[in-house]
Amino acid sequence: MNLILLDPSEVKGAYAYLTDTRRITHLREVHRACVGDYYTVGLQGGKMGKAQLTELHETQATFTLENLNELPPPPLPVHLVLALPRPRMLARTLEHVTALGVKNITLLHSKRVEKSYWQSPELRTEKIHHHLVLGLEQARDTQLPNVALCKGFRPFLEEQLPELLKDRRGLVAHPGMPNACPRNIDGNVLLFVGPEGGFIPWEVEKLLEAGCEGMHLGPRILRVETAVTALLSRLF
Amino acid sequence: MNLILLDPSEVKGAYAYLTDTRRITHLREVHRACVGDYYTVGLQGGKMGKAQLTELHETQATFTLENLNELPPPPLPVHLVLALPRPRMLARTLEHVTALGVKNITLLHSKRVEKSYWQSPELRTEKIHHHLVLGLEQARDTQLPNVALCKGFRPFLEEQLPELLKDRRGLVAHPGMPNACPRNIDGNVLLFVGPEGGFIPWEVEKLLEAGCEGMHLGPRILRVETAVTALLSRLF
Repeated sequence: MNLILLDPSEVKGAYAYLTDTRRITHLREVHRACVGDYYTVGLQGGKMGKAQLTELHETQATFTLENLNELPPPPLPVHLVLALPRPRMLARTLEHVTALGVKNITLLHSKRVEKSYWQSPELRTEKIHHHLVLGLEQARDTQLPNVALCKGFRPFLEEQLPELLKDRRGLVAHPGMPNACPRNIDGNVLLFVGPEGGFIPWEVEKLLEAGCEGMHLGPRILRVETAVTALLSRLF
Repeated sequence: MNLILLDPSEVKGAYAYLTDTRRITHLREVHRACVGDYYTVGLQGGKMGKAQLTELHETQATFTLENLNELPPPPLPVHLVLALPRPRMLARTLEHVTALGVKNITLLHSKRVEKSYWQSPELRTEKIHHHLVLGLEQARDTQLPNVALCKGFRPFLEEQLPELLKDRRGLVAHPGMPNACPRNIDGNVLLFVGPEGGFIPWEVEKLLEAGCEGMHLGPRILRVETAVTALLSRLF
């Protein structure tokens, strides 16, 4: 926890009040917090700065906010379309990509996504929110990503893709494509990452027909969480 | 498990015999293996190819090997020097970097590494071996990385670093360095990644004095496992 991310409901004037066990335990046990210590804090969706811990009890921590005038780090200019990974991989991937600065995520169904994944408790709004918050706390960022769920590949293709490609370069990461992942590019990207086992040929074909470019990350088969981090780091 | 990695002891002539529960269970439950199916196999340290599953029992799987004449994917030209991460992070990081093709890893003590981490069961030879194998199975590679443990920063600096830098470009990933991580470079690299909280200034100073270059990955604070993947993907 490199940043204490404050929900608007936790701030009253120049004071912030935390009452959740997770962060209070973390402050006590990991940071070994003492009254008087300074921490980096940020307002969800807003600016960051320092705050002094002025009270610490079992169930509440009080901070006095200094000037919060620091901007969060810039976002990555990418909309990530991720074939829904299995639940534990999803959780970690959301944390990685949030820490890396992704602000738009669509979780998409595709042929090789197991249907049962869509029933996972990891997809509950509060669970997703939790992993996004962990990513922001890690990277010292305040801007929550938007996460959309799209349970149909064809509806996505027909109803959403044309609009998304209007002002974005579409890139599909897929093994066996002739071109390697481009490096250090400018402009907005719509990045597709397939499921374990990859997109099926029909899906790749449809994405290319719609105007996306295929590209690969080399001969190694990577886990989704490793591949997504490697792709984002190479692209931007 | 995208590759069945065969230990030399498991191969007799044109046959391979697996007797460990982990892989037999994985074959049965994830791959839903049937006699007659073909799998990608590789000899530890050697070549890869196809094998046919010819017997499958509760406690043994027998494969008939075809010509194993495929080379594993090329390694990354990097020796990774990683300040020892906390145990769970170490396990995942070893899997990521092995999948990405790192073949030389030194786990190093530094001031901000908690001393208790050196007592972790995750550092036992067989535990480390297990995570390396998982990385190879994921990426379809057969070459195990070498992992060395170095419990003293100063002995490393004095006794090992000069030799390692003779034919390698030393790079220290550290927040606040003036230069960004270079991209798509040639030649051999010695890559230093610090602990949570970073190397202390004295450590950075000594590494730079020895001839390493400092570089950063941007304003975001990343977990070790995310940072290492991002660094390797950007460098190579």
